[in-house]
Amino acid sequence: MFSPLIDELMHALKVLPGVGPKSAQRMALQLLEHNREGASRLADSLQRAVAGVARCGRCRTLTEQPLCGVCASERRDNTLLCVVETPADVLAIEQAGSYQGKYFVLLGHLSPIDGVGPEDIGIDQLLALLQTEPVSEIILATNPTVEGEATAFYISERAKKAGINVTRIAHGVPLGGELEYIDGGTLAHAFSSRRSL
Amino acid sequence: MFSPLIDELMHALKVLPGVGPKSAQRMALQLLEHNREGASRLADSLQRAVAGVARCGRCRTLTEQPLCGVCASERRDNTLLCVVETPADVLAIEQAGSYQGKYFVLLGHLSPIDGVGPEDIGIDQLLALLQTEPVSEIILATNPTVEGEATAFYISERAKKAGINVTRIAHGVPLGGELEYIDGGTLAHAFSSRRSL
Ligand SMILES: [Zn+2]
Ligand SMILES: [Zn+2]
Repeated sequence: MFSPLIDELMHALKVLPGVGPKSAQRMALQLLEHNREGASRLADSLQRAVAGVARCGRCRTLTEQPLCGVCASERRDNTLLCVVETPADVLAIEQAGSYQGKYFVLLGHLSPIDGVGPEDIGIDQLLALLQTEPVSEIILATNPTVEGEATAFYISERAKKAGINVTRIAHGVPLGGELEYIDGGTLAHAFSSRRSL
Repeated sequence: MFSPLIDELMHALKVLPGVGPKSAQRMALQLLEHNREGASRLADSLQRAVAGVARCGRCRTLTEQPLCGVCASERRDNTLLCVVETPADVLAIEQAGSYQGKYFVLLGHLSPIDGVGPEDIGIDQLLALLQTEPVSEIILATNPTVEGEATAFYISERAKKAGINVTRIAHGVPLGGELEYIDGGTLAHAFSSRRSL
């Protein structure tokens, strides 16, 4: 509508999750009208991140170093290994700030329908790690979905055979969550997982 | 949290309107995990747009050519000149598809409190254009805000002195708008601007 470069920028912005044609248009015009410096910085930062960021050699989260900050830290507890589906999960747990162990990122979950088996999500690497590190407990923090649960179950069986304790993080009503706004699946789970006091 | 390049990318993404820390994080991880090619294309497109896009020499909308497509077109009606506040307004009117005249983009509105006077929003250029082009009607499409109305009034007085017809686009209840969801100011305006049938 305006000119090829602007149309192209609007199109390129739609690569961002949650950005449709209307937001892309607003973003492109806003940057070109009021923040060209910010737009240049963003372009530069995108290029450097794409070129420099790869996966941690041990836990497979995203990092530009051979080992991520958690894996490289001497202060983290080597005996705890939290298994998650994505780097975003690592970030969420780190931001909560209470976990002091290490991680392993599966990069997904088992999904037989899509042909995603144990080797595709790195379960071999996970089991190999149990041989070389003093892990005494695996904490399964895969998502509480059908696939996440199946993945947790599979890892649990393999790890128990290797003599490692396996735990699963608790699921239920979030703290501060009002019952009337909680979905039925979560509520049902909260009831079936109730504990005596 | 992850590594400097990722943190920096999350920070740089916040330059986009409507993107806070949480969305920036989601965008950065999504691009690095699943769409590095799209991220590179976005970086490239941002750089080329920042370097190549400037303002139309006649109407001042954003374009990479000396004149924008509307100004350069021989098929647009030279006698109609629609005055808007921003390039986004031009785009909205072009997308509606019924206007066949030309534009002038003020790049803002009069705002004495912020020290924005007629010369800051290019009213001199607008008046000069009336001398050199066969404009017979100015259509004021500034926003229906206090500043937009004041700007429309100011231009109207100046243009009338120059012997040009001046009109203002209609404001009221949008087509398909349900009365109960329309804000009070719009409703009040719709009543005070009522026409006999
Ligand atoms: Zn790591
Ligand atoms: Zn133009």
